[in-house]
Amino acid sequence: MRSTMMDAPLQVARILEYGATVHGTAEVVTWTGAEPRRISYAEVGRAAARLAHALRDECGVTGDERVATFMWNNTEHLVAYFAVPSMGAVLHTLNIRLFPGQVAYIANHAQDRVVLVDSTLIPLLARVLGELTTVRHVVVVGGGDPEPLRAVAGDRVTFHHWDDLLAGRPEHYDWPEVDERDAAALCYTSGTIGNPKGVAYSHRSIYLHSLQVCLPEGFGLGPGHRELAIVPMFHAMSWGLPYAAFLSGASLIMPDRFLQAAPIAEMIAAERPTLAGAVPTIWNDLLAYLDTHDVDTSSLKEVIVGGSACPPTLMRAFSERHGIEVIHAWGMTETSPLGSVSRAPAGVTGEDAWRFRYTQGRIPAGVAARIVGPLGEPLPADGTSVGELEVRGPWVTARYFGDDAPDPEKFHDGWLRTGDVGMLSPDGFLTLTDRAKDVIKSGGEWISSVELENALMAHPDVQEACVVGVPDRRWGERPLATVVVREGASTSVEQLRAFLAESVAHWQLPERWAVIDAVPRTSVGKFDKKVVRSRYAAGDLEVRELAGP
Amino acid sequence: MRSTMMDAPLQVARILEYGATVHGTAEVVTWTGAEPRRISYAEVGRAAARLAHALRDECGVTGDERVATFMWNNTEHLVAYFAVPSMGAVLHTLNIRLFPGQVAYIANHAQDRVVLVDSTLIPLLARVLGELTTVRHVVVVGGGDPEPLRAVAGDRVTFHHWDDLLAGRPEHYDWPEVDERDAAALCYTSGTIGNPKGVAYSHRSIYLHSLQVCLPEGFGLGPGHRELAIVPMFHAMSWGLPYAAFLSGASLIMPDRFLQAAPIAEMIAAERPTLAGAVPTIWNDLLAYLDTHDVDTSSLKEVIVGGSACPPTLMRAFSERHGIEVIHAWGMTETSPLGSVSRAPAGVTGEDAWRFRYTQGRIPAGVAARIVGPLGEPLPADGTSVGELEVRGPWVTARYFGDDAPDPEKFHDGWLRTGDVGMLSPDGFLTLTDRAKDVIKSGGEWISSVELENALMAHPDVQEACVVGVPDRRWGERPLATVVVREGASTSVEQLRAFLAESVAHWQLPERWAVIDAVPRTSVGKFDKKVVRSRYAAGDLEVRELAGP
Ligand SMILES: Nc1ncnc2c1ncn2[C@@H]1O[C@H](COP(=O)(O)O)[C@@H](O)[C@H]1O
Repeated sequence: MRSTMMDAPLQVARILEYGATVHGTAEVVTWTGAEPRRISYAEVGRAAARLAHALRDECGVTGDERVATFMWNNTEHLVAYFAVPSMGAVLHTLNIRLFPGQVAYIANHAQDRVVLVDSTLIPLLARVLGELTTVRHVVVVGGGDPEPLRAVAGDRVTFHHWDDLLAGRPEHYDWPEVDERDAAALCYTSGTIGNPKGVAYSHRSIYLHSLQVCLPEGFGLGPGHRELAIVPMFHAMSWGLPYAAFLSGASLIMPDRFLQAAPIAEMIAAERPTLAGAVPTIWNDLLAYLDTHDVDTSSLKEVIVGGSACPPTLMRAFSERHGIEVIHAWGMTETSPLGSVSRAPAGVTGEDAWRFRYTQGRIPAGVAARIVGPLGEPLPADGTSVGELEVRGPWVTARYFGDDAPDPEKFHDGWLRTGDVGMLSPDGFLTLTDRAKDVIKSGGEWISSVELENALMAHPDVQEACVVGVPDRRWGERPLATVVVREGASTSVEQLRAFLAESVAHWQLPERWAVIDAVPRTSVGKFDKKVVRSRYAAGDLEVRELAGP
Repeated sequence: MRSTMMDAPLQVARILEYGATVHGTAEVVTWTGAEPRRISYAEVGRAAARLAHALRDECGVTGDERVATFMWNNTEHLVAYFAVPSMGAVLHTLNIRLFPGQVAYIANHAQDRVVLVDSTLIPLLARVLGELTTVRHVVVVGGGDPEPLRAVAGDRVTFHHWDDLLAGRPEHYDWPEVDERDAAALCYTSGTIGNPKGVAYSHRSIYLHSLQVCLPEGFGLGPGHRELAIVPMFHAMSWGLPYAAFLSGASLIMPDRFLQAAPIAEMIAAERPTLAGAVPTIWNDLLAYLDTHDVDTSSLKEVIVGGSACPPTLMRAFSERHGIEVIHAWGMTETSPLGSVSRAPAGVTGEDAWRFRYTQGRIPAGVAARIVGPLGEPLPADGTSVGELEVRGPWVTARYFGDDAPDPEKFHDGWLRTGDVGMLSPDGFLTLTDRAKDVIKSGGEWISSVELENALMAHPDVQEACVVGVPDRRWGERPLATVVVREGASTSVEQLRAFLAESVAHWQLPERWAVIDAVPRTSVGKFDKKVVRSRYAAGDLEVRELAGP
């Protein structure tokens, strides 16, 4: 029996329309290094209409064509986030940190027709534009000179300046009703081996995911909140913060290209965010800065940390030294990206609460999760059975863009294989011990590289630690500990090994150690273990060998 | 371009599955007058599986057949809320307060096959069961003797006892995947003239509505919260509280048949709800009780009041005298029922905040709203243009159950005509001045009956006031004020008229007054203005006439 309910699609245009009217006085602030730029959500609504008219009338965007962005987190990127999907086209957020070859592969694979580029990124785009065979229009945001782009693009590309392009266009656009399962945005994941893979979010998945972000068990957003969105808009849709802001009436603070600890500290003091989101490395840098500078962070109640495991020491340091609660969250490009959020259950306090907060968090109703064994067999959610995490739900991808069928390496019986290894508790808390490919198999036993890293980072002299498995004649594989020592501190690998021995089983203690200057990073700021392993293999690391197990 | 996202339907079974596992230790408490009954959400999950098996195997429920409830708010009703839609059948919540003829009409119109009835309601059901032509099974909940039912039912009905029926059945049911637009629950509205009309909620609408209820701008629900659900489960799905509880992990407190102020006060003191929901009359009674008894209400932070306009004096009294914030909300059976929720915008405090809180609240993204003039023409959302409210969205009904096409009296160009008159502000706040049919048209000018009622209820000696329009030779229509005087108080209609004159335009002052014992109520506890008008017409009221305008 059919219901009598209306057939009202969940669509990005509705989020825009709502935020731009009911929450029209909320604002988006973009950092500039000098006076920040601010515009209201009502103005974002008008700018989105103008952009849509321009894309249709000047760039010939019709149907579901792809409009790419090559941009920092800023106002214009936000306008594109709304305009492109609302008009029925598909927003493709290009990752500015990928190698040129990867950018070209992605843009061609997605068949991007238009690229919006920040002036400050013209040199980076110029390295690849010549290879972007489907691009016909480039829109330059800001006052930069597009000459370096023109030089490589040939005749096939028309250039526009954002301001000129939008000037004088109607401030209203009759957003079409879309099929909610159609694509709204496209994002390629950097986490896979081989060529990057695309995930096409639907209007439906974005809308549902945004509601989840706003829920008290998510990020708990409402009017009056101010979100500092550090996590890039080219990485998993900035964790849904932009759309959630318009749905909830929370204001947005955008760092543009100012991602170092000093300007972020300044933004916090000046713009008084209530919530912020970024990967652990950003918070690690910021912590060191806050510890040595006098910054007013009193507005900031919670920072969401995800993208890779957050070391418990980092969480405690923020709480104890700065009164800022780090909320650990898990997700992936393939899951929109939320994922679990780690809030202790009601009534749990003190050390017990910390035990929950160290986990990757609680799975929401929209994400069904299970742990499976080596043969893909489901294991109990008993808090102890360890296996690969599989998820499914309305904002989880079923396959990669362009694939006819789900790749069995990544999908299993309608579930997404996350490649993450860990356990689920009966009450829905997820604890990850490692990435499947980073688990160290030593003499038949498994060693969690993340556990060793967390234990090492608890040492006051350790700024960062990255542990990878390396080949070993006797055990098959053994951990290699690479450590960044805090500025001004002096410690030895012997001391660190002794420190580790206090919290880690003897047989898990690494014998190979290297003190390094910095841990190599992926394009989205995570530890790049592939690079560490290959540097080791190439003999590029200065390795000390201590006694084995 | 199709998205790559999974096709995961939004369905009630998922809410059940989630609440019963991840929030398995949350509890539902049912008041009994003696020791309350409590079971965990995990147990509710098992009971729902058992009930589904029983309905299928013993009552032959297949496909989308209707299973009706004739019940108070209690554990078993909650189990039915989940079991029936989850198995793919349709839950039909019968309103126990309707006239027998209406109950029969509704049950036959819906073609109910099974009725679940509370023992304490056997006598009421016995008055109509003989006329329920499609019912084949009656399940009695509790220890009552079904003899009075048997006596009227004839052979066509088989009787079961809940406990026996569920005993020994499997605690797991393989909930089918449903089409999310299929009906999950059916509720008839009591607000219309003529026969009651059915609204069939879909799995999708229930799921989306539940998310809205949980949002900070909705009721803000999460684990550790405890909802006292006084609003009947047969009235607009108890405002979505049961489903929202399972989605959020909030516990539930169910009053069963104990709806008087004294037991409700006891429940609050003993079970420590953090939030409660009911119509204004319940809160009015409770306020009088709390003012004269010493009750620990310290757990209760917010009470949601909706269903009819909440008098500002009631809101202030709860806040000032008991530290409980009344949150005004608007909705209707046709809108699932949420609607708007009245929270002051961020940063607004003091008297300014009250001005927002007196309104019917802010429209959420899921409910598009507009005000239209007498010819159906959209009026601006400028906070001053007055007209009929129209809404649309994924949890708003598009027609009534059984109608082939939308009734033009109630639907207009894809929008629901709410029958409510008022205005919308640019930032989405809704202020209702009256029901369209209750507006008093006096000499070409409109008088809001609700405004006069609120002004009268601000008088300390007035317990309740109900104002209706009555025919007048000179003005066409004039207000009749009917007033319930507080116990022990003595006031005269002359005094009340003088009091009213301080806040209301002279020409709006009623000349007709009647002191009455109680305001007649509809089946869901609202003022029944139809009855007041017909009593007046029949000369059943003792009316005093004072000087006219
Ligand atoms: N809180 C977390 N703890 C551990 N790993 C995480 C966390 N959040 C994200 N990740 C990792 O990041 C991957 C997703 O990468 P990406 O798609 O680039 O966002 C996940 O599969 C995890 O391996």
